Amino acid sequence: MSVVKELASKAKGASRILAGLDTTAKNNALEAVAKQLLTDQVSILQANELDLQNGKEAGLSSSLLDRLALHENRIQDMVEGLRQVAELPDPVGEVMESWTRSNGLQIDKVRVPMGVVGMVYEARPNVTVDTFALCLKAGSAVLLRGSANALNSNRALVASIKKGLSATVVPTEVVQFVDSEDRKDVDAMLRLNGLLDLVIPRGGAGLIRRVVETATVPVIETGVGNCHLFVDQAADTSMALEILLNAKCQRYGVCNAAESLLVHRSVASGWLPTAVSELQARGVEIRGCPAVLKLIPGLKPASEEDWATEFLAPVLSIKVVENLQEALSHIQTYGTGHSESIITEDQEAAEKFLRQVDAAAVYHNASTRFTDGFQYGFGAEIGISTQKLHARGPMGLRELTSYKYVVRGTGQVRS
Amino acid sequence: MSVVKELASKAKGASRILAGLDTTAKNNALEAVAKQLLTDQVSILQANELDLQNGKEAGLSSSLLDRLALHENRIQDMVEGLRQVAELPDPVGEVMESWTRSNGLQIDKVRVPMGVVGMVYEARPNVTVDTFALCLKAGSAVLLRGSANALNSNRALVASIKKGLSATVVPTEVVQFVDSEDRKDVDAMLRLNGLLDLVIPRGGAGLIRRVVETATVPVIETGVGNCHLFVDQAADTSMALEILLNAKCQRYGVCNAAESLLVHRSVASGWLPTAVSELQARGVEIRGCPAVLKLIPGLKPASEEDWATEFLAPVLSIKVVENLQEALSHIQTYGTGHSESIITEDQEAAEKFLRQVDAAAVYHNASTRFTDGFQYGFGAEIGISTQKLHARGPMGLRELTSYKYVVRGTGQVRS
Repeated sequence: MSVVKELASKAKGASRILAGLDTTAKNNALEAVAKQLLTDQVSILQANELDLQNGKEAGLSSSLLDRLALHENRIQDMVEGLRQVAELPDPVGEVMESWTRSNGLQIDKVRVPMGVVGMVYEARPNVTVDTFALCLKAGSAVLLRGSANALNSNRALVASIKKGLSATVVPTEVVQFVDSEDRKDVDAMLRLNGLLDLVIPRGGAGLIRRVVETATVPVIETGVGNCHLFVDQAADTSMALEILLNAKCQRYGVCNAAESLLVHRSVASGWLPTAVSELQARGVEIRGCPAVLKLIPGLKPASEEDWATEFLAPVLSIKVVENLQEALSHIQTYGTGHSESIITEDQEAAEKFLRQVDAAAVYHNASTRFTDGFQYGFGAEIGISTQKLHARGPMGLRELTSYKYVVRGTGQVRS
Repeated sequence: MSVVKELASKAKGASRILAGLDTTAKNNALEAVAKQLLTDQVSILQANELDLQNGKEAGLSSSLLDRLALHENRIQDMVEGLRQVAELPDPVGEVMESWTRSNGLQIDKVRVPMGVVGMVYEARPNVTVDTFALCLKAGSAVLLRGSANALNSNRALVASIKKGLSATVVPTEVVQFVDSEDRKDVDAMLRLNGLLDLVIPRGGAGLIRRVVETATVPVIETGVGNCHLFVDQAADTSMALEILLNAKCQRYGVCNAAESLLVHRSVASGWLPTAVSELQARGVEIRGCPAVLKLIPGLKPASEEDWATEFLAPVLSIKVVENLQEALSHIQTYGTGHSESIITEDQEAAEKFLRQVDAAAVYHNASTRFTDGFQYGFGAEIGISTQKLHARGPMGLRELTSYKYVVRGTGQVRS
C-alpha cells in the first residue's frame, strides 16, 4: 500500500468514529487543539524559521516569504479561528426535509459528514489549521498536502494538532499529513477513489488545473476570479468610483478583486478620466481598449490575453461598451464565473444583469469583494467554488457536508 | 475543433437561451416533442429494427435485445414521460434562502440551471428521451452519448426531438447527440472543461469506472448497488420474509435490489431454512457462509468476491452474523453506499443502524427497492447517485440544478 493510501485509510477509519461524535465532543477537541497550539508556539515558530531560511536560499519572492511567515500574532489568529469554529452551529444531523409517502414510508433527508476531505494547497500555513478545524466541525477527517515551502511549518502544526487531540475522544487519525515534497504523492492522493470523498485545491490557476486534470476523486474547483465591474449609463458615478476603488484596490492578490472594468459609452468621457487618475494615484496600471486609449492618451493597450487574465496585481483592463448587451457578452466570454457587479440606478438593467450573468455571485451596486464566507455570514470559509456541482461561491460548514435519506417503514414492499 | 467540442459549444450557446425561458415555454416544447415522437413513430421503429438486426448478427443476449427493442407501447411510455415532466414544478428561479446583512446587503440564494449536462449511457433508447426531458425542464442543454448498439434508434429519436423543438422558442441546439461508435469521442467529451458542467454515466460498473477515470469535468457516479438486508434478532420474521422476497426477487437487474442477506444468529436456525426454500422456489441461487452451509446442506459456499458482488441476477449471498455490530462492519466493508435495510422491532437497534450505515438510503422495516425518484415522490429520476458530492440517492429535477448568490446593495464597499 502506498504511503498516501495508508494515510487515507487511517483517515477513513477515524472519520467513522468522528461521524458518531456529538457537537460537544467536537468543540472540546477544537479547544484542546487551540490550547496546544499556544503551548507549542515556540517549536512551531522554530520550524517556520527553517522554512523561511530555506525559502530565502531558494530565492522566494518577498510576498511569498510574507505569506509563509508565522509570528505570535498569526498563531493567535489561528487559535481564535479554532474557537470561532467551535462556536458555529453544527451542521451534522440536521433534518433538511421530511415527508411521508402515501404508503406510510417516512422519509427524512439528513445532513451527514462528507467523510474524508483532501486539501491540496499552496497558501499560508494557517490553512492547515483552518482546514482541520472546519472539517472536524463538519464531521470529516482530512488529508492535508501543503506547499513544499511550508513543509516544516505544516509538520509542526499537524504534530501540535495531533497532540491536542490525543487527550480528547476525537481520534488523532482524523488529521493526516502528506509529509513529502514529491509531486507523485499528490497524484496518488488524487486517485484514492473509495477513500477520499472530495478534494479541494487552493492555490494558483496552475495548481487547480493540475488537480482537475489528474483527479479521479470528486473535486471542487476554487478560486480563479476574473471579476468584472460594469458601470452602466444610469450609474451613480460617485458610487461607481467608490466601488471601483474598493473592488480593485482594497486588496490586489485576492480572487474577488475586480480585474476588468466595463464602462457604458455614455458615461465614459465624463467619468473615466477621473476614475483612471484615481486608480493611477494608487499605483494601478491601466490597459485599455482603443476607445479608452483615445479618451485618455498614453495608456497601454489591452491585449486579447489581458481580457482573460486574473492579474492578482495592481493592473486593470478597461473596455468601453455600447450597451448592457455588449457588457453581458464580454463577461460571458472572459469571466470565470466568480463575481460580477453592475453599477446602475436602472432597476430593469440591474435585474437583467443579475438574471443573465452566469457566476457564483452577481452584485448590484456593491463591491465584488463581498464574495466571502465571513461577509455572507457563514462564519467560516474553506474556499470559493467556481464550479456548479455541489457548492457555488463561498463554502462554509454546510458546504462541507453531504446528506442521506433515512426511511422508516412498517413492512412496506414495492408492488 | 473536434466534433464533440463543436457539439458542446452549440449546446453551451443554446443553454444560455434556454436559461432565460419561462416554464410555459419549456412545457410547450415538451408537448411539441411528445406529439412529434408520435408522428415519427414509424421511422423510429424502423431505425430500431435496424439496431435489433445488427444486434442479433453481433450475437447480443436476448436480455440485451429486449432492453434495446422499441415498440408502440414503449414509444407511448416516452410520450407520457414527456408530459409527466411538463407537469412537474419548475425548479429554476426558486429563491432557496434569503437574508440581509447588517451592512444592508440583501443576499438571495437562487436555483439556476446546471448549464450543459453530458450523459454517457448503455441503457434502453428511452434514456435518450427521458434525459432530454429532465434536462430541458431543469433549464440545461444536454450532450448525449448512447450505446453503439442503439445508434440508429437514438439518432432517430434525437432527430424527432429536434424536429419537435423546431416549431418552438427552445433552440434545437439544446439537444446534441454524439453520432459515433468511436470510444475516443467519449474520452474527448469527458474532458470538455468549460463547456460541460457535469457528466452522468448510466450503465454497468465498467462504464462508470471508465468515466470516473477519464473525466476531468465533474462527474456524478450512479448506480452500483451491493445492497444488504439485515434481519436482526428482534425481527418480525414474516415481515422479514416478505421484504426479502421483494428486495431480491421483484426485479433482478436493478441497482436497488438486495444482493446480500445478513441474518442474526439467533433467528438463523428458525427462519433461514424457510427463507431459503422460498428463494429457491423462485429460482434464486444461494451462496452462503459456513454457518449457512451447516444449517442448510447442499448450498454453494460464498467466496470473498461474492460478498463484494452486485449480482444483478437471481443470486443471493447469505451470512450469519453474531450481532448488529458484525452486520454494520460487513456492510461497511462490502457495501457500495447505495441502499441498506434493517428488519427489526428493536427501535434502538434500528436507530443505530440508520445512524451508522453510510449509504445514500438507509431503511428500517422496508424494502431497498424503494430507492427511486418516483417512489420518493420526485416525479422523475435521472439516476441514483452513490457519491457524496452534490447529490446522493435518487436524482430528480432539483438535483440537476445549481445555484447562485444574487446580492443587491446601495453602494456597499468592503472595509
